[in-house]
Amino acid sequence: LLRDTRASSARVFIAPSVPEAVVDAEIVQECIAETLGAKREIFALLDQLTPPTTVLASSTSAIQPSSFTAELVGRARCLVAHPVNPPHLVPLVELCGAPWTAEECIERAHAIYASVGQVPIIVRREIEGFVLNRLQGALLSEALRLVGDGIVTPQDLDETVKNGLGLRWSFMGPLETIELNAPGGIADYCARYGGFYRRVASDPPSPKVWDQDMVTRVTTAWGRRSEQVLKDRGAWRDQRLAALRAHLWEHRQE
Amino acid sequence: LLRDTRASSARVFIAPSVPEAVVDAEIVQECIAETLGAKREIFALLDQLTPPTTVLASSTSAIQPSSFTAELVGRARCLVAHPVNPPHLVPLVELCGAPWTAEECIERAHAIYASVGQVPIIVRREIEGFVLNRLQGALLSEALRLVGDGIVTPQDLDETVKNGLGLRWSFMGPLETIELNAPGGIADYCARYGGFYRRVASDPPSPKVWDQDMVTRVTTAWGRRSEQVLKDRGAWRDQRLAALRAHLWEHRQE
Repeated sequence: LLRDTRASSARVFIAPSVPEAVVDAEIVQECIAETLGAKREIFALLDQLTPPTTVLASSTSAIQPSSFTAELVGRARCLVAHPVNPPHLVPLVELCGAPWTAEECIERAHAIYASVGQVPIIVRREIEGFVLNRLQGALLSEALRLVGDGIVTPQDLDETVKNGLGLRWSFMGPLETIELNAPGGIADYCARYGGFYRRVASDPPSPKVWDQDMVTRVTTAWGRRSEQVLKDRGAWRDQRLAALRAHLWEHRQE
Repeated sequence: LLRDTRASSARVFIAPSVPEAVVDAEIVQECIAETLGAKREIFALLDQLTPPTTVLASSTSAIQPSSFTAELVGRARCLVAHPVNPPHLVPLVELCGAPWTAEECIERAHAIYASVGQVPIIVRREIEGFVLNRLQGALLSEALRLVGDGIVTPQDLDETVKNGLGLRWSFMGPLETIELNAPGGIADYCARYGGFYRRVASDPPSPKVWDQDMVTRVTTAWGRRSEQVLKDRGAWRDQRLAALRAHLWEHRQE
């Protein structure tokens, strides 16, 4: 499945219109403009155009499903299925229903994403940022604070993750990581180190770390790269992600 | 260097006493009990036993260097060099001096760790948890909040990192990650998404996520594994880390 790119490409076609694209669909993955108005309009259309068994999934990373599905006859089959960029290389998909989304719809979406090699997870209540971007935000805010306060250079901050925390996190989650860092597992780890983490949590970074002056301090220390350099580096990233996925796939049985 | 384990082992010997271990050392890596009293005692001893050019480095993850080096004649050559477990597989070393640590001492330590294939970074002022554990703490506190509040299962939380955020973070840092996620780099990314991250930062997890009842909710949902299973899984983790390091080494030129 992962390697047969020619066969995969042959199954893709561009439909000349929305009705033709969705008429027989098992699932629709909506990826249009990231505005509430656009989502409302397209979901109303999709609800009319598709059979009632079609799952209607939005790629939105920032808009809650209840805000654009409330009025629809078929609202029970609507959800958010938030992929991660680039989705052909990062398998996670966050599934989040509105309060009226049918459990069975979420289960069907889960099965469909899993069957094509993605890794779906379920966000059980609507929450801004879902799970991934909240976790990313928690780490980024602390990172900006540490760099902005002059504790560490942005280059060394990045080294700390890629040569420290990020190694385990690419094949284990943060909870299994701490489970294996104390003989008695997670509860033992929290008993040993909870005091420290509680003190860190009692002094969280201010939202002001995202203000212009703090960001400027970070970008000045980081240095500026041209759009072309960033584009080339983005292609490098994708190659590295593909190689890493292949590596992880080889070791999947262990 | 990375593969010649026999030659490396042959260079290791166990000295019969502390004076014999350190008398000719270029650098001493102290790894004794994690208490302030023990650190004070051993550093006083090391300062007497070693020539003034020896770098004296503590492995402590939690004790600030100024708290156990202030009274020493050779305090300018003392610092913390905090490795990450397991240090033969995770290369990061956090270097943190006291206010009186000589810049030249930190530079020498930096050069020594880099020369043996570790990745040293510099923590420029004393701060609890240094950099790595503060970043880990920020992410863990948000993770415990999301799981404890029933937003996501602990299993799905771990999937979110290992199949989402952790892939890029194993070969790029979080700052380069965001730099490549907006055409104009970090400043552009912060302009686009800073509003969201500011809202997330304005609602940080409470230190109470580390309280017993929250931790119990997480461990109940996670399930308990015996010490033997955790030990086996720890050996698996080390094998996976070794394989990942080999993979990253192969791709180091890209």
